[in-house]
Amino acid sequence: MAVTPFSASLETLDLDPAFAMHRGGKLEVRSTIPVRDAADLSLAYTPGVAKVCTAIADQHELAAEYTWVSNVVAVVSDGTAVLGLGDIGPSAAMPVMEGKALLFKEFGNVDAVPICLDCTDVDALVETVTRLAPSFGGVNLEDISAPRCFEVEDRLRAVLDIPVFHDDQHGTAIVVLAALRNAARLTGRSLGDLRAVVAGAGASGVAVTRILLGAGIGDIAVSDSKGMIYQGREGLNSYKEALARDTNRAGHTGSTEEALAGADVFIGLSGSTLAEDALAAMADDAIVFALSNPTPEVLPEVARRHARVVATGRSDFPNQINNVLAFPGVFRGALDVRATTITENMKVAAADALATVVAEELSEDYVIPSPFDARVAPAVTRAVADQARLDGVARR
Amino acid sequence: MAVTPFSASLETLDLDPAFAMHRGGKLEVRSTIPVRDAADLSLAYTPGVAKVCTAIADQHELAAEYTWVSNVVAVVSDGTAVLGLGDIGPSAAMPVMEGKALLFKEFGNVDAVPICLDCTDVDALVETVTRLAPSFGGVNLEDISAPRCFEVEDRLRAVLDIPVFHDDQHGTAIVVLAALRNAARLTGRSLGDLRAVVAGAGASGVAVTRILLGAGIGDIAVSDSKGMIYQGREGLNSYKEALARDTNRAGHTGSTEEALAGADVFIGLSGSTLAEDALAAMADDAIVFALSNPTPEVLPEVARRHARVVATGRSDFPNQINNVLAFPGVFRGALDVRATTITENMKVAAADALATVVAEELSEDYVIPSPFDARVAPAVTRAVADQARLDGVARR
Repeated sequence: MAVTPFSASLETLDLDPAFAMHRGGKLEVRSTIPVRDAADLSLAYTPGVAKVCTAIADQHELAAEYTWVSNVVAVVSDGTAVLGLGDIGPSAAMPVMEGKALLFKEFGNVDAVPICLDCTDVDALVETVTRLAPSFGGVNLEDISAPRCFEVEDRLRAVLDIPVFHDDQHGTAIVVLAALRNAARLTGRSLGDLRAVVAGAGASGVAVTRILLGAGIGDIAVSDSKGMIYQGREGLNSYKEALARDTNRAGHTGSTEEALAGADVFIGLSGSTLAEDALAAMADDAIVFALSNPTPEVLPEVARRHARVVATGRSDFPNQINNVLAFPGVFRGALDVRATTITENMKVAAADALATVVAEELSEDYVIPSPFDARVAPAVTRAVADQARLDGVARR
Repeated sequence: MAVTPFSASLETLDLDPAFAMHRGGKLEVRSTIPVRDAADLSLAYTPGVAKVCTAIADQHELAAEYTWVSNVVAVVSDGTAVLGLGDIGPSAAMPVMEGKALLFKEFGNVDAVPICLDCTDVDALVETVTRLAPSFGGVNLEDISAPRCFEVEDRLRAVLDIPVFHDDQHGTAIVVLAALRNAARLTGRSLGDLRAVVAGAGASGVAVTRILLGAGIGDIAVSDSKGMIYQGREGLNSYKEALARDTNRAGHTGSTEEALAGADVFIGLSGSTLAEDALAAMADDAIVFALSNPTPEVLPEVARRHARVVATGRSDFPNQINNVLAFPGVFRGALDVRATTITENMKVAAADALATVVAEELSEDYVIPSPFDARVAPAVTRAVADQARLDGVARR
C-alpha cells in the first residue's frame, strides 16, 4: 500500500509509547469454550443452544447461570466529562472506557464492555441503558458531566435490578474515605474530629462529601468555581442546594482559601490550584488530598511543608488515590452474590476493607495501598459481598 | 452452601452437555496489552490515555486506529424470532447471541458483543442502535421478527456509516446463492435456466428471493402460510406486495405444492413440512434445499428419491447451508477495508467466493463447503474487501 499522508501521520504518532500501546485497541472478546468440530458447534450453537434458550424463557433466573450476563458490566459514557478533558464526545472517550474495561478484567476478573453513547439527554441516556440492561449484570457509569450524572444514576437505580454505579462519584468517594480513615488514625483522630473543605462540587465532590457525611465527619464545606456553597447563595442547582443544607455548619461564604483557615482536611477535586498561603493556615497535622489529574491542586513537595499527610491521584507520588482500588472489587463482590443494587453500606464496607489492607504498615506515605497490591481486590470483594447479604440485596 | 431446590435443579440441567457447556456463559473480554505495573497503567490508562483521546477528538478517523471499535461488531437482537423458538425475549435470546459472537471470533477473528435489547418497537430499536454506534465498527442484526426487521435494517443502513447486516436475511441468502450456483453447475444449468419455489416469506425467504432475483434466476415464486404470494392477493404487507410484483411470473395462486409441479428448485425456509408427492412432481435434476431447523421440511433420505441435490441446515446431513459460512468473512472483509456499508455486490461476491471453494470437488453431496473448511473465511473476506473497493465504499 502506498504511504499516504494519513498513514505517515500514524507512524509519527506511534513514536509515542501511549499511541503505540493503543494501536488496534486494548480489548478482545474470546470464547471460553472450545469450538473444534461440528459436535462442539451443535452444543454451543444450534441445535443445542435452543434448549438453553427455552429453559431461560421458562425460568428467567437461569440467564445468570447459563449466559455471561452475570459476569459482564457495561462501562457506559456519553463522553461529556472525560478525565480532565471535558466534553470530547463518545468516540474520543472510547480509549478511557476500554482502559476501564481492561482494569475490570485485570483486577476483578469482571468482563466489561465499553459503551460510548451518541446522546447526552438524560431521558435518552436512561432509556438507552434500560434497553441494554438484559445484556449486562451491572452498569458502571463513567465520565458523564454533572449535574446530569446524578439524575441518570438515580433514575437507573430506580428502574434496574442490577448494580448501577457511577464510578466518578462512588469509586472516588470510597477511596477517599479509606485514605481519610487511615490518615485520621495515623494522627490519632477520628473522622468526627475533622473539619474538611472540599474544592469541587462536580460528580466526585458531591459523592465524596456525601460519603464523609454518612461516615460522621465533624464538619465539611464544599466550594465550586464561585466560592463556598452555603444556604441562600443564588443560582444553586438542586444538588448544590442540598449540599448547602447538609454542609458548611460554620457558614463560610467566601473563597476555598478562606474556609481552609484552621481546617484539618483539604480535598481537591476541582482542577484548580491552591496557594501555599492557604495551606499554611490549616490546622496542625493537616491532611491534603490534591486529587486533580494530571496536575494536582498543589504539588506534594509544597503541600508537605504544611501538611502531615499528602495524597494525589498520581502514580509517581506516594498515596495514590486511584479508583481502581475500588471499582473492580465492588463489582466483583456485587456480581458474586448477584446483588440487585449497591447500597451505601456496601460502599462504606468497601472503604473500610481498603483501609484495613494498610494495617500496621500505616505511615505518612502509606495511608492507602498500591493498585498493584494483590490483597486489595479480594478484601473489597469480600466486604461488599458480605454487606450485600446483610443488607438483603443479595440474590444468592 | 446448603443445597437449595434451585441449585439442585441446576445439577440436573448440567447433566445435559449443552447446559454444561453453557454454564457461566461462553465469552470473556480480555486485554490485548500487558498491565503489569504502574508504567503500563500510566500508558493504557491515565495519564497516557488522555493524549489518545485528545487526538481522536481532533481527528475522528483516529478512533479506528487507536480503539478496538474498528474490529468490534454488535450482535443485536430483540429476542422476537430466535431460532425456531419465536418471541422468547431478550434474556432467553442471549445464548444464541453469545454463540454468534463466539463464531465471529473463531471463524473471522472479529470481536463481537451480544446486545439483547429490551424493546421491540422499530423506532426504539433504530434509535438505540444509532446511539450505540460510536462503540462499534459494525452491526449484525439477529433474530428480529419480520416484517419489523426489514424496516429496522433499512433505516439503520440509511443513518449509519458502518456496515449493518441482518444475518437471518443476508447470511442465509449468500449461502443459498453459493449452493444453488454449484448445484446448477453440477446439473449443467445456469441460474437463468431455473424455476424456483421458496416456502417462507419471513426475513430469510425475502432476502433469498431478492438475492436470487438479482443473480438472474429464471423464475421464482414465494409462499407464506396462506399459500403462494401473487399480485392482487388480499392483506399483503408492503414487503410481500413488493415480492408479488417482482416474482411469480407464472402466476401461481394456490399452494406451495401446486407451484412445485415442474419446478427445478425448492427452498424451504418456513418451518412447514413438504409432502413427498409434491417433490415427485418436480422437474428432473431437481434441487431441494430444506433449510428449516432443527426439522427440515423434508428429510434428505426422502428428498433424494426425487431430487438430484439435497441440502439442509443440519450438520448431520451432507450440504449444510449454515450462515457461519458467510457472516464471519463478510464482516472481516468489510472491517478490513473500513467499509461504510455492505452493498448487494459485496453479498454476491461473498456467495461467489464461497461457491468457488468447492471447485472441482463438486458432487451431489458437496455443493457447499464445511463450516470447518479453513479456506472459507479467507476467500469470503478477500472477495468482500475487493468488492467494497470496487464499489467505492472502502475507507482504506
